[in-house]
Order: sequence, then C-alpha cells, then structure tokens
Amino acid sequence: MSSGDEPLLLGPGPSPVAVRVLEAAARPLVGHLDPRFLAEMDEVRSMLRELCETGNPFTLPISGTGSAGMEAAVANLVEEGDSCVIGVNGVFGGRIAELVRRHGGEPLLVEVPFGEAIPQERLIEVARDRQARLLAVVHAETSTGVLQPIDRLASGLEGLDCLLLVDAVTSLGGVPVRVDAWGIDALYSGTQKCLSAPPGLAPLTVSDRAFKRVRSRRAPPHSWYLDLQLLAGYWDEGGARAYHHTAPVAAIRSLAEALRVLQEEPAAERHERHLRTARHLWAGLAELGFELLVEESVRTPMLTSVLVPDGVDEAALRRSLLADHGIEVGGGLGPLKGRVFRVGLMGHGAREANVDRLLEALASFLRSR
Amino acid sequence: MSSGDEPLLLGPGPSPVAVRVLEAAARPLVGHLDPRFLAEMDEVRSMLRELCETGNPFTLPISGTGSAGMEAAVANLVEEGDSCVIGVNGVFGGRIAELVRRHGGEPLLVEVPFGEAIPQERLIEVARDRQARLLAVVHAETSTGVLQPIDRLASGLEGLDCLLLVDAVTSLGGVPVRVDAWGIDALYSGTQKCLSAPPGLAPLTVSDRAFKRVRSRRAPPHSWYLDLQLLAGYWDEGGARAYHHTAPVAAIRSLAEALRVLQEEPAAERHERHLRTARHLWAGLAELGFELLVEESVRTPMLTSVLVPDGVDEAALRRSLLADHGIEVGGGLGPLKGRVFRVGLMGHGAREANVDRLLEALASFLRSR
Repeated sequence: MSSGDEPLLLGPGPSPVAVRVLEAAARPLVGHLDPRFLAEMDEVRSMLRELCETGNPFTLPISGTGSAGMEAAVANLVEEGDSCVIGVNGVFGGRIAELVRRHGGEPLLVEVPFGEAIPQERLIEVARDRQARLLAVVHAETSTGVLQPIDRLASGLEGLDCLLLVDAVTSLGGVPVRVDAWGIDALYSGTQKCLSAPPGLAPLTVSDRAFKRVRSRRAPPHSWYLDLQLLAGYWDEGGARAYHHTAPVAAIRSLAEALRVLQEEPAAERHERHLRTARHLWAGLAELGFELLVEESVRTPMLTSVLVPDGVDEAALRRSLLADHGIEVGGGLGPLKGRVFRVGLMGHGAREANVDRLLEALASFLRSR
Repeated sequence: MSSGDEPLLLGPGPSPVAVRVLEAAARPLVGHLDPRFLAEMDEVRSMLRELCETGNPFTLPISGTGSAGMEAAVANLVEEGDSCVIGVNGVFGGRIAELVRRHGGEPLLVEVPFGEAIPQERLIEVARDRQARLLAVVHAETSTGVLQPIDRLASGLEGLDCLLLVDAVTSLGGVPVRVDAWGIDALYSGTQKCLSAPPGLAPLTVSDRAFKRVRSRRAPPHSWYLDLQLLAGYWDEGGARAYHHTAPVAAIRSLAEALRVLQEEPAAERHERHLRTARHLWAGLAELGFELLVEESVRTPMLTSVLVPDGVDEAALRRSLLADHGIEVGGGLGPLKGRVFRVGLMGHGAREANVDRLLEALASFLRSR
C-alpha cells in the first residue's frame, strides 16, 4: 500500500494506488490515435459501464478531475432559466448549486444540516411543485460522510421532464451504484477515491433520455472542452473519432489498470470489504472515546467524519499523524473546519491493517497529550 | 526514445517522453496537500515562469489538456459582448473563435489561407478600428506548421484596453517564447508537445494587467473548474491554498520532471537543436522529392506539413509508416485532410537520428509503390 517515506493515504482522497496501476502510466507513451490506445479507450468505457451497472452508450472518463465531471454534467444538462432542485447537506451539494448558477440555471436548494441525509420525499416534492428540469444530489458527501439514499428518487419524479443527476465521486466502487436500476440520468465520479487511480479523470455516464436533451439544447453549452456531443464524437467506439482534444494517454492507461484491478474482486465482496473495514474503524474509534458526526444508518463506509474531542487541536492531530506516524487524514471543510477530521477507507486503502495502524497512531497521540 | 513495440512519436503530439519523466508519475502517490507535493507545485510554477520568460505571479498548469488551457483563458478574459480579434490561419485559431462565441464574446476573424502567416499590421488595424478588448493568435499552428510573428503586436495595441492572448501549445519549449518582452497578457500551452510530458495539463500564464480584468468582471466566468481566481487561491504559493479541486498529483509530478529535464539544456541550445533537426528533415524531404505546405520564412521547426505527392494515398502512407516502420506521424486536419501529413520534431523527439529513421522509412515506402 504505502512504504518507506510515503504516507499511508487515509484522507478524503487521493486513496492509495496499487503499484501496477502507477506503473501503467509509466509504460512508453503511445499516440492518442494509436490503434492499441483506441482499444484501451473502448475497454475503459466497457469496464465503467459494468462498474456503474448501466448500458448507457455515453459512458467515458472526462479529461479533468471530479469537479470537471460535475461541470460537464451541469454545463450540458442545464439550460438558461432551468429550475434545478439541489440537495445540499455538505460542501459538494453547494458546489453543484454554484455551477448551476454559472451555467444559467436557477438552483432551488433543499437543505439539511451538514452530517444529515435529505429525505427523498422532500426533494421529490420540491421538484414536482416547481416543475424542475433537473434534480441533483450527492450520493456520498465527501465533506461529511453521509450516504444519501437515492433509490426512490426516479420513481418519485415519474411523469415530470426532470432529469436525475448524481454525484458519485466518493461512492462509486465502494457501495452499490445502480445507474439503470435507480433511473439515474447522469452520474459522475472521480478516479482518486474508491477506484484507486491517481486524480485527474472523471468517469461520467449519461442516459439516452438525458443525451436527447443535450442534443436538443437551444444553445450549445458554454464549455467547449466539456461539450458532451463533441466528446461523444471523439470517444466514438469503432467510429470516426472526430478529433476534439488530445486524450491524456498516461492517465487513461492508469485508470484502465485500476478498473482491471477492481474487476478481479466481485463487486459484492468489494462493497462488503469497505463496510467491514469501516465497522472495524468505527468500533476502534468508539473504544478510544471518539464520537462520529454522522449517525450509522446514513454513514458512508468510505469516509468517516470524526468529531474532534474537546481540548484537542485538530490541525495538531493531523500534523502528528503525518509527521510521527506517516498517515494522512483530512481536515474538515467549510463549517466543519477544525470540528472534525476525516478518515477515508477507499478502494485499495480499505484494509483492516490500515485501520489498525491508524488506531494505534491515534491512541499514541492521545497518550502523548 | 522509443524501443521494442512502441512507436516513435513523430506526429503533432504527444511527443516522445523520457523514461525518467514517465517514472516520476509512477512514484508512490502522495496527497494533494502533502507538504512535499506543495513544494513540487511551487517548483513547477517557478520553472514555468523561467520557460515563459515571465515574472507573472499567475503561472500554473491547468488540470486539463491544452484545449482546457485555451478555454480557461477565454472563459476568464472574455465578457459578454466583448469584441475579440482572432487570427485564423488554421484549425486552432478557428477553435479560439468558437470558444469566444460560447463565452459571450464577439469574434472578429482576421483570416488568411491555411499555411500562411497573418501580417501583424492587419491584426492591429482591426483591433484599433473595432476597439477590441482582446486580440488572440496562435503562435505555432499545429494544423499547418506556421510560426506566426507576434513580437510587434503589443506595441501596436498600445493605448488600447486590448489584451494579447497567445496560443503556445506547440511553440513553448521549441522556439523562443518571451511573454514579458513581447507584452503578452495571457499564454497557454500543452504538456505533450515540446515539453515532452504526457498530455493532460495546460501551462497558463496571465499578466497582472489581465488578472486585474479577471478580478473586475461584471459576472463570474461560466466555468467554475477553470475559474482563474479560484485556481489562484488553490495554487497560492506559501498561502492559504483554498481547496478547489484535487490536483492531478501524478501528472504534475511528471510535468515537474519534464521541466527539470528542460532546464538541463540551455534554452538557446534547445531552440537551436529544434531548428537544426528541422532543417535536416526539410533537406531530406526535398531530396526525396517532397514539397512542404509552408514557406521557410514562417515555417515552425517543431511541426512540418508535408504535401502528399500526386498518386500517393495519404492514409496508406501513414499506415505503412506505423505498421512497417514503427513511426507515427499525423494526418491533415480540416481542409488539409488527405492533402498533407504532419511530422512533429518536438522536445525529446527533436533528434537527427529520428529524422534519419523517418527519411529511410519514407524512401522505402516510395520505392515499394
């Protein structure tokens, strides 16, 4: 996982990356139009479809980080004046709202305090009341560690011309993400969380229904780099592959190898491993006297926000973990800054041995105070 | 450079990447907030300033390919209704115009046929006549191989509130690019041309004058991912580093190593090597009876468009070079499709031995017909 001088990555991402995944990026570079690379692009698309449990033809990695995936979805699905219901229970829901505004939409916020989940009924109700064109939620809020229930949203939106957009940056690969079964119209993720590849790409899948809306836009999206119709032409499987931008060859090869690693473990076992490892962490933290931000029924296994005990300096705790124990965890974001630290057990990093190493380090830090 | 099964990359990019540059991406991953990585981010900024001959505080790699650099510049520098003079003598000038339109500006095209350079006086005249807010040109047109003169533009714009934007995707590193001396307000590049790093990042430098305009925009740019003010806060040297997106750690480490490689060769020698290698190619092509698209006075050394002789099938020529000789060259873009093939001698790939290998392969192809 991690050795020598390199820290063990137990923060909110990037997560630890397997050596074979890193080495895939170090193979001699080939051109972005080389037939062997084109075959690898197709393989990546096919593996992403399997991972997202979808048959969506439009499924590919955007050439930017998770936030570029968010912007690609919003820039293409939202038109001037569209009402968009956004669930906001953390920093990333707020970010979606900001992007909707920048691309001309009107965000309607459905807010609950950071650390809580949003009742699906409330989201549906606002969408129906306001005849919303889009409903967006964050599946696993990286700023809090809440796993937002999303399975009943699509049925609640039936009959409305309202697309369902899901941020799966932290959830994809760690918990079930059933794009087709849950009626999700667009979903983006990042490579540096449960996929355990380096940061830099954003898998994105878009339903045929949503892509029809993209094709019938009144005006092209403001973003050319993230224009889904141009990207579809470029990533065109076995087709003309109309030149758009130069694909980030090395990063895509890393992602391909990371997806192959994922396929070697059945999805159910992978999800069970994330949950088992998280429960091991939660039990150990309780023994040490730590309390958690999110209640267990909506707590995501991949990311745990730990409340900072009274009298403990959060920044000093993180500095000590990194400097004295070689472990990186994350700080709190937004209103949680200084109030929580965040432990990520994602992908390749979700191992009980990593949890044990962290628990020992935390115990040592508490003793030393 | 290239060995075994991997093709020798002599197309329009990606160019050959040194092993040590590839291996830099394969080092165990660290977090994007790790102090050692932050130091590497600062080092990249400093090396980019040196390469661009600028003191611009805002100098950093955008987390996307060269086209993302173009979009970052346009999205932030252009406001609704701004008149923008765009020099168009190839595909990439046309792309700038398209981006200006998408971000609300009004492109005023100054066009000459593909393969010719645009008189600086014409660009200046239109900018002055129309009180343009921006003048944009492509320094080295990757679609043709024209090196556009840009040294007298800034002085011609004096007294106007007109920013000078330069596309240096293919020129940076291969020919002199003097941002401060030539009065350039914003300049972007790509990593996969003369910097000889994998594709995926777009160095961007912005003058204080241009950044002042960004700060005084009437509305934020449509793009959040490419918002320069947010990026400045994130890349903030020694400052607060306000979280924006997760930096593509592995790609940035590769770029850092590529920039270190560049620094080991004095700039004047590097430019001389590109020119010498190109002249070796041009002489060899002439001996084989090939003619070139661009006249020598405005021909860029890094990219040569070779006219396809009568009776030769351009696609068959490229297929044979790749399959029989392991050499990748590029096809023609836009109106030049089928009429030229493009030879890139960029960065690490600009070596006379590579030229000799290509010339032998071309001679063999011609003999075999």
